[in-house]
Amino acid sequence: MFSKSQIKLINSLAQKKYRRKHGLFTVEGKKGIFELLDSSLQLHSLFTTEDIFDAERAKTHFIEEAELKKISNLSTPQTALAVFHIPQPTAPEAEGLIVALDNVQDPGNLGTIIRMCDWFGVNELVCSEGTVDCYNPKVVQATMGSIARVNVNYLSLPDFLKKIQGKMPVYGAFLEGENLYSRELDARGIIVMGNEANGISSDVESYVTQKLLIPQLGALQKTESLNVATATAIFLSEFRRRDLTGK
Amino acid sequence: MFSKSQIKLINSLAQKKYRRKHGLFTVEGKKGIFELLDSSLQLHSLFTTEDIFDAERAKTHFIEEAELKKISNLSTPQTALAVFHIPQPTAPEAEGLIVALDNVQDPGNLGTIIRMCDWFGVNELVCSEGTVDCYNPKVVQATMGSIARVNVNYLSLPDFLKKIQGKMPVYGAFLEGENLYSRELDARGIIVMGNEANGISSDVESYVTQKLLIPQLGALQKTESLNVATATAIFLSEFRRRDLTGK
Repeated sequence: MFSKSQIKLINSLAQKKYRRKHGLFTVEGKKGIFELLDSSLQLHSLFTTEDIFDAERAKTHFIEEAELKKISNLSTPQTALAVFHIPQPTAPEAEGLIVALDNVQDPGNLGTIIRMCDWFGVNELVCSEGTVDCYNPKVVQATMGSIARVNVNYLSLPDFLKKIQGKMPVYGAFLEGENLYSRELDARGIIVMGNEANGISSDVESYVTQKLLIPQLGALQKTESLNVATATAIFLSEFRRRDLTGK
Repeated sequence: MFSKSQIKLINSLAQKKYRRKHGLFTVEGKKGIFELLDSSLQLHSLFTTEDIFDAERAKTHFIEEAELKKISNLSTPQTALAVFHIPQPTAPEAEGLIVALDNVQDPGNLGTIIRMCDWFGVNELVCSEGTVDCYNPKVVQATMGSIARVNVNYLSLPDFLKKIQGKMPVYGAFLEGENLYSRELDARGIIVMGNEANGISSDVESYVTQKLLIPQLGALQKTESLNVATATAIFLSEFRRRDLTGK
């Protein structure tokens, strides 16, 4: 059972404004909830139709399927919904590899990028203020638990890159860039990826010190571009491969 | 203007059964339509609120926004909807690189994979019968026109792999595989990618001749896996990089 005010609060978390106001976000489905319960994130409350979670009893509310429907963002609700506190990110440091996103709009793309950052041991993700919110339910879903292990900061990218200027190389994907596979790459640096339709904005481009290109091989060369998550995957794989193999 | 039977036909194409029956599929939005009009695909009919397409007049129907809503799959219809004939795929040949998908379910993943096949010059995609249909509107949308340039066959993967046995290596991603970055790779072969949740099925696994692993680098190594489109991108990039650089 839960109260009307709880329903109202949880429903409001579908919107970024209210997530920021309350410092809370939601995650649905057993898998995602188990992942986050097993992380450093702090549980606020858990609503479940099954007694399968190892969460604080005081925060666990057993509810009916019909009640779950009232708070779910999904057309087919998945047993449980948990509310977690949004962690305070630490300020990004000029160390290792950093991924920077310039107005990435698609929740699935951001979620996939967070998941691959986690896989490749990239702990710092910086996002322009126009990038989709990482606590958007669709993003959280797509991260498959990785949201708890990557430090995500929203900031002005030009200001951030200006501050970091000269401390580490800034890489970006451009059609007029040098071949990613043959160019020398530093094991540390910032990899900037742009918006799905417009690429990297001009005020960010001016801070890019190394323009790189993923060579296109199709016979017709008609493919306009790669999806931003695909391109990020190829960049991260290539940086890590060099670091690992020393080649 | 259009007739009730046209509306019925177009709406039915949201379902695979009717796409197969009529040999037709839909694409929405200027960008996607321009791409496909400029391809080898054959237009069946075009419904548009704007006179901006260079398509056969006899097949072009100028309609009102309210009419477009009746045939659109999108919550916000996009100026135009086109119906194209599904091309007859040619039988896949044991040449070059082939991507094989074993029950990939997510339309966005399949669309992204088709787009990257096109980018990397992989013309052959073979899909298990349980893989999502490549003419699903969401897949078509995500391919960004690449659907016209990749030869997609749906077939029994074990039967296909059995036939091709010994002719070319069959690579697959497995947690117990060898390091992708250091293992020798052939410039020709089949790359098998598995279902989002269950990976490669056992009847397909038995035909895999080289098990490969994308090394995980996260400090905690908690990330369960990479998204299938991400993993495919990394595989394709690494195969093409070797081929290009000879290293």
